[in-house]
Amino acid sequence: MSGYNVAVVGATGAVGTRMIQMLEQSILPIASIKLLASKRSAGKVLHFKGQEKVVEELVPDSFRGIDLALFSAGGGVSKKFAPEAIKRGAVVVDNTSAFRMDPDVPLVVPEVNEAALSRHHGLIANPNCSTIQMVVALEPLRKVYGLKKVIVTTMQAVSGAGNRAIKELHDETQAVLEGKDYEPQILPVSGDKKHYQIAFNPLAQIDVFEEDGYTHEEWKMIHETKKIMEDEDIQVTATCVRVPVAIAHSESVWFELDQKGATVSKLQELLKKAPGVVVQDDPDNQIYPQAVNAAGKKDTFVGRIRPDQEQADAFHLYCVSDNLLKGAAWNSVQIAERLDALNLLRVPK
Amino acid sequence: MSGYNVAVVGATGAVGTRMIQMLEQSILPIASIKLLASKRSAGKVLHFKGQEKVVEELVPDSFRGIDLALFSAGGGVSKKFAPEAIKRGAVVVDNTSAFRMDPDVPLVVPEVNEAALSRHHGLIANPNCSTIQMVVALEPLRKVYGLKKVIVTTMQAVSGAGNRAIKELHDETQAVLEGKDYEPQILPVSGDKKHYQIAFNPLAQIDVFEEDGYTHEEWKMIHETKKIMEDEDIQVTATCVRVPVAIAHSESVWFELDQKGATVSKLQELLKKAPGVVVQDDPDNQIYPQAVNAAGKKDTFVGRIRPDQEQADAFHLYCVSDNLLKGAAWNSVQIAERLDALNLLRVPK
Repeated sequence: MSGYNVAVVGATGAVGTRMIQMLEQSILPIASIKLLASKRSAGKVLHFKGQEKVVEELVPDSFRGIDLALFSAGGGVSKKFAPEAIKRGAVVVDNTSAFRMDPDVPLVVPEVNEAALSRHHGLIANPNCSTIQMVVALEPLRKVYGLKKVIVTTMQAVSGAGNRAIKELHDETQAVLEGKDYEPQILPVSGDKKHYQIAFNPLAQIDVFEEDGYTHEEWKMIHETKKIMEDEDIQVTATCVRVPVAIAHSESVWFELDQKGATVSKLQELLKKAPGVVVQDDPDNQIYPQAVNAAGKKDTFVGRIRPDQEQADAFHLYCVSDNLLKGAAWNSVQIAERLDALNLLRVPK
Repeated sequence: MSGYNVAVVGATGAVGTRMIQMLEQSILPIASIKLLASKRSAGKVLHFKGQEKVVEELVPDSFRGIDLALFSAGGGVSKKFAPEAIKRGAVVVDNTSAFRMDPDVPLVVPEVNEAALSRHHGLIANPNCSTIQMVVALEPLRKVYGLKKVIVTTMQAVSGAGNRAIKELHDETQAVLEGKDYEPQILPVSGDKKHYQIAFNPLAQIDVFEEDGYTHEEWKMIHETKKIMEDEDIQVTATCVRVPVAIAHSESVWFELDQKGATVSKLQELLKKAPGVVVQDDPDNQIYPQAVNAAGKKDTFVGRIRPDQEQADAFHLYCVSDNLLKGAAWNSVQIAERLDALNLLRVPK
């Protein structure tokens, strides 16, 4: 049987189930698929291309004979099991933050820095969801005009915090509509001390706070953008807000270009030609990106492109993308497709 | 009977009903209150300090004997009837955009530019909701360090579009939860061509688009901030987004100070002493402003104060306030209180 033996780690999660879908649609030749999860989820039945697949408990030997392992089961699981997978010959595409800032690990958005794939040692990190869609939207502009500074405010969907967060949003919203009490247990951060209402209530916290007052999520956007764009001099700063949305992150991005000469129509033209980007920017007809339209799609939708009226070479854009697809599952599968195309889907000796 | 004869125009609306509440709580001496609305709403019964008040149809002679008229019934109503009120001796506080940028009309947030009240000719404009809370948060910092540039992304509650928008959010959210169809008819802008789902879906449009790709709402924030702060040189740029929230706007504000020397703790100290501001900024204990906590309060809640890590003298803050109270009804009644205190609650000859 020709093709790769593929494992999905965290197969029952919000991202894991989308990884399976993306693999079903992928051009990647797949010989077999193995669905892995914690002991608690083992035994569940999922489907791949119409066939029943029983979820197996993740153990080191799960990776025997596996060529490609997609991880999305939390940083702790990746730290423990990714080395086991690589040791057994699997290339790992890891969707957690465990290895993203490791200088030996490529952090890849194929539209932006596919070349970094050639430097992998068995593991490629998938960036944070909020970072991915922003760099997809900014890279085509950076390539032509350079990028000096980025100030982003995100409005992120709860599915970034997993299936339990989606359920909390739905149940809590229903309770608020009925005037009933609801005790939040997941959002904003399941592992943090306090939990707050997300229904009809934005929460300016995604991931835990660091000592400097930024959240981990905000630092991820800062550090990962520089690493993916391979330019430490780009200034990036971020405010990340969780909003009562199930799927797709919306981002308000202000950016200053390095070089002169850009206009809205020139930026629109660059984005129209850019891979993975769909321009939805027609204010006269009220066309701008929306979460409900982006959910389920692989693209990053970009609109509201307009100049800062008082600062030369500075602009706004607004980008929306499915955080579970381009922000996670699709970007991971896309990395695997590109590894295959570049003959890099093997652990280097 | 001592005190003012007060009229509320648009008394049955989302802001009008709050104006009545704010007048009930006000220190303003009130001799009588007259509730005015369109013919359609005339005859409705509302309450003021426990007494039933029948809503009357707004006509020019409604203002006979009125000392103070609070308008919040749309720009067209203000344009037509505010001059009639002033002609009959009433001072008008107008919560619409009709006269805000008129150079002869003071645009006032008492915490920021109370002195402008002395220049009124019978009409004082109440600024746009999203502008008010931002200038309340920034003014204490501007006074000490000067303000060079502001970049704001708003996450605005639907109640800014009136009671029908609140109902649409609730009904549509219920429909989405039940998997039913719902035809939006109000949001993002009731008078615009297309209407979109707001349930679980941010909409990057508040008010109509201008030819330059900015919305009216975004231009209001830019122009009004400069006018209220009386400084055309402050650079302001904005992206205004409607989010599935009923009450209270949340704003992510990046700002660059004019002078050196500011630190997070200095900014926090200034804000703690500032009128109308409550600092909620304790990341270690997950304390930051939230819409559900701000709703029903008169203050502007400020948190997430932190430096831009790569640009000197630049910072972030996050401010939340009840758009119907400080953003509208309370600011209008507060203007009236200050007019009274300054002996300016009369139409100048």
